[in-house]
Amino acid sequence: MTTGIGNTPVLDDSVRVEGGVVRILDRRVFPETVNWVSARDAEEVAAAIAAMVTQSSGPLFAAYAGLEITALQVAGLAPDAARERMRAAGAVIQSARPTNNHPQEAVARVLAAIESSGTTPELVEAAVSAARSGAQLYRDRSHALGAATVALLPDGARLLTHCWMDTYLIELVRAAREAGKRFDWAATETRPYLQGARLTAHTLAEFGEHVTLITDGMGAAALAPGSGLGPIDALVTAADRVSLDGSVVNKVGTLGLAVAASAFEVPFYALVQAPDREAPTAADIVVEERDPTEVLHTLGRRTASPLVTDAWYPAFDVTPPRFVTRIVTDRGAFAPDRVAEYYA
Amino acid sequence: MTTGIGNTPVLDDSVRVEGGVVRILDRRVFPETVNWVSARDAEEVAAAIAAMVTQSSGPLFAAYAGLEITALQVAGLAPDAARERMRAAGAVIQSARPTNNHPQEAVARVLAAIESSGTTPELVEAAVSAARSGAQLYRDRSHALGAATVALLPDGARLLTHCWMDTYLIELVRAAREAGKRFDWAATETRPYLQGARLTAHTLAEFGEHVTLITDGMGAAALAPGSGLGPIDALVTAADRVSLDGSVVNKVGTLGLAVAASAFEVPFYALVQAPDREAPTAADIVVEERDPTEVLHTLGRRTASPLVTDAWYPAFDVTPPRFVTRIVTDRGAFAPDRVAEYYA
Repeated sequence: MTTGIGNTPVLDDSVRVEGGVVRILDRRVFPETVNWVSARDAEEVAAAIAAMVTQSSGPLFAAYAGLEITALQVAGLAPDAARERMRAAGAVIQSARPTNNHPQEAVARVLAAIESSGTTPELVEAAVSAARSGAQLYRDRSHALGAATVALLPDGARLLTHCWMDTYLIELVRAAREAGKRFDWAATETRPYLQGARLTAHTLAEFGEHVTLITDGMGAAALAPGSGLGPIDALVTAADRVSLDGSVVNKVGTLGLAVAASAFEVPFYALVQAPDREAPTAADIVVEERDPTEVLHTLGRRTASPLVTDAWYPAFDVTPPRFVTRIVTDRGAFAPDRVAEYYA
Repeated sequence: MTTGIGNTPVLDDSVRVEGGVVRILDRRVFPETVNWVSARDAEEVAAAIAAMVTQSSGPLFAAYAGLEITALQVAGLAPDAARERMRAAGAVIQSARPTNNHPQEAVARVLAAIESSGTTPELVEAAVSAARSGAQLYRDRSHALGAATVALLPDGARLLTHCWMDTYLIELVRAAREAGKRFDWAATETRPYLQGARLTAHTLAEFGEHVTLITDGMGAAALAPGSGLGPIDALVTAADRVSLDGSVVNKVGTLGLAVAASAFEVPFYALVQAPDREAPTAADIVVEERDPTEVLHTLGRRTASPLVTDAWYPAFDVTPPRFVTRIVTDRGAFAPDRVAEYYA
């Protein structure tokens, strides 16, 4: 995981296989508390994913790790029984969280790799190899989109980011250093879960990057001409989903930053490995609403008036393509109205 | 203070004179804790203002109350000595917080009223009367701008507000009821101090209004077409200052909401009793930056990663006139480019 340049952030290596056990960093409480959850089999990995111990790209890495330890556990079985156990483990893992596609992709990849294994040792080796190469492929594609983003940015650029870009952020920083570029960061805190204040700002600090934290309402003030923070050169966020018409679905708050960036002529780059070929337009994507009581609390403590009973918590918002400058993928940057050409 | 319609919110009557003592609701901890700070003379009132016990319009009411109790305390002195004590009290009160003009206005009004009092009883009566009528004038002007705002809004409108409009909010609700209109409210929480979650949502709930709380990043999602919250009919905020070119200086976060409202064709009404004749343009207004460690904390608790050292806390932002629909004053609503006509 180390690159030889700077430190490795904890969140870059937050799912580990150690002695046949999966260890998963508990992102629900990190960094206030550093707690590693141990999962000894596929069922325990699925339970950890379902309990939101890890989020974002974490379930992908946890799914691969769960399949890897399962492969070690079936080494004493006959080939067909071993394959059956692997399939059962896959079924448990991919049903852990229905709205995150990552575990499904991981399971499909590993099960395909063991379809034709003739002996159990072959099966075990194929499964472990597929799990590890699948995780590495995810990092490699994230590195490619990071490098494509870096190519759009001048050395010394000040970037505003929102929420937590996870592996995309980490690989973007690495790609920048490979390109001999250094960026200055501003990060929104990203209420209600504070992923920006807890994960993004923490990870950038671990890397030795300079990061300034702002509240979610300060983004437009930062983007406006003459801001006391100094000029922002680009808004850079991940995208949870991008439809083929170039609409960006990402953590709520992205839309407001994108509209302000557009009004003040700051480019907005949205990062995603690939657009979603199942979603021709934004209307094909359902925006999940979450428990509104999160808005009334901050890290478990009630922070709104006790008289307030109603709140609204849309997990994501949809940024129309007219507010997006480029969608950056592992195959390069696309104007939003041409992102379907990714599949050309 | 009561109108006979609904309850009186605590924050509508948060500075009281009781038995010659000024009692000031401590807004720093309200509503989690309801604590009244007692001030026995002008010096203690000034100390409470300086310590930010009360904010927004609170220092205006506290200044008047401090002058009122001082007038009672000088009743046994000769007229000239009484006037001298009143001037000394005024000097202490108006220097309590240099960037809030309200105490200065209160002091000037009361000292002008006692300039020609021939006897001490006349002086005391003139001072008490000027203090009370000054406070009432502030409420009356707030009511007038509330009524002018209500005239712009249809019955049943859903309004998005930001931060804490204080007396403007309270009088707007009263004016709406007098006009037979009822509004539905969405309020941003307004980090870092959470005035929206603690003061605005609380006060609206006390009034029996329906209010939905959102985080600061959700404003654009609420304003966008097809929002899950239902359509927002207007963005309504106070303005700390309005320059004569129609720029609105208000709590940081207002700019982002105004830009999003403009992009999605939702009107933005900014409320201020009068524009600032000392500020021809926004460039004539200095935007105060506050202690950035507030961004790293929530209600006194560290909520950002311990590795994060830098943050930015501009107290206000400046919304250019092109993003403002109307500036609503106690003399009615003005297009932003015509707000200087307030003084015509």
